Amino acid sequence: MKTLFIGGVKSGKSRLAEAYILAQAGQVQPYYLATTELLDVGMRARIAEHQARRQAAFSTLEEPLDLLAAVQGCTAPVLVECVTMWLNNMLYHHYGEAEILARLAALLAWPGDLVLVHNEVGLGVIPDNALARQFVDLSGKAAQMMGAACDKVFFCSAGLALPMK
Amino acid sequence: MKTLFIGGVKSGKSRLAEAYILAQAGQVQPYYLATTELLDVGMRARIAEHQARRQAAFSTLEEPLDLLAAVQGCTAPVLVECVTMWLNNMLYHHYGEAEILARLAALLAWPGDLVLVHNEVGLGVIPDNALARQFVDLSGKAAQMMGAACDKVFFCSAGLALPMK
Amino acid sequence: MKTLFIGGVKSGKSRLAEAYILAQAGQVQPYYLATTELLDVGMRARIAEHQARRQAAFSTLEEPLDLLAAVQGCTAPVLVECVTMWLNNMLYHHYGEAEILARLAALLAWPGDLVLVHNEVGLGVIPDNALARQFVDLSGKAAQMMGAACDKVFFCSAGLALPMK
Repeated sequence: MKTLFIGGVKSGKSRLAEAYILAQAGQVQPYYLATTELLDVGMRARIAEHQARRQAAFSTLEEPLDLLAAVQGCTAPVLVECVTMWLNNMLYHHYGEAEILARLAALLAWPGDLVLVHNEVGLGVIPDNALARQFVDLSGKAAQMMGAACDKVFFCSAGLALPMK
Repeated sequence: MKTLFIGGVKSGKSRLAEAYILAQAGQVQPYYLATTELLDVGMRARIAEHQARRQAAFSTLEEPLDLLAAVQGCTAPVLVECVTMWLNNMLYHHYGEAEILARLAALLAWPGDLVLVHNEVGLGVIPDNALARQFVDLSGKAAQMMGAACDKVFFCSAGLALPMK
Repeated sequence: MKTLFIGGVKSGKSRLAEAYILAQAGQVQPYYLATTELLDVGMRARIAEHQARRQAAFSTLEEPLDLLAAVQGCTAPVLVECVTMWLNNMLYHHYGEAEILARLAALLAWPGDLVLVHNEVGLGVIPDNALARQFVDLSGKAAQMMGAACDKVFFCSAGLALPMK
């Protein structure tokens, strides 16, 4: 079972995805796969705060790049928070689009349960900046790949989840 | 009864909200609470034009900051047009995020009927500009608060309203 | 019968619209009206590649400005790919908003079957740039006009189409 929560900044998608996977997991403790790369101390502090909040409910994994390796041993549903940040990390480390999308396909082919959180960034004005345009394209291609592979897809706005699939 | 119309620029959300509140109000004349701060003559002219169009249908109130005070005496449904502009005004007058969200919570706790119009601004590329990012975050938090408090929520695009709640 | 697919960059709207019109057309070969203005050789190469992919399925028409003239003789459903690019071309050639929207209204009044592809660009931060703001406004007005005139409207994200009408 694969599920996607896609939405804007502060749309509530992460909170909705957390509630969803906890309900789905039942008595089992799900995993929280944090994709954020800990580049500075401030970010580490913020992440620590988030971890404290989730402590009881999730087993936390941290992996900025190799998501498939991170989920390999997991025997409970995994929340991937978030795919957008992972795309960012991959571009930052000079992975090309084909390699990134191949890795995403491999993750989606993993047989375990995944709940994926992703930003929709393509509904504003097309940015002037070539790098931003490249990111919007990659993010949309990744979203389409997840939309096709997932059993359920929710579009989030105003803290609410609209079923798309 | 609280209702939210959320959508993009020129998505038709205001027109849809106006039609909705007029249908909801029935024989009663609803209020139109304009939150625009009248900073220049050009804006005043544009607002006057809008008012002329609504003249027969609504009682118009104007309040850029203290929305709760403005609705206190209202005995008919109130259309708040729009929350995005109010957030803008509050930031412009140096109110902090916690104060702004507390005031929004107080408005939503007011027992009368409200129809709220708000922009979804979080579905594009995350802006470079720190102030714009702060605004996107605040706008999304406000949207989530309204999404939770409202009985009905509509997502608007292409002049159409998709029920989310 | 008029149908609108509206969505973000790389939301899958074009692919969804192509599949939709092919299903709608049945045994008849539909038209593909490409609105892209061929300003440079690189663009021409990209378009040629797209054409090759569609070759068997569609009759291809190319028209950057006068869409109504282009569809006049068509006796099968026409896919307009895309309205956003056409708005862009019209502004580039100094047509005013009123003229552009009047031409869109005339196209929508044409009695044949149309499937229109359009970008939703109004769900991000309002751009600083006055030209970009003008484009967002025009694009949203065009979307509202199409939303009103179309029998079916789909909002696209993650490669999925959500029916709005």
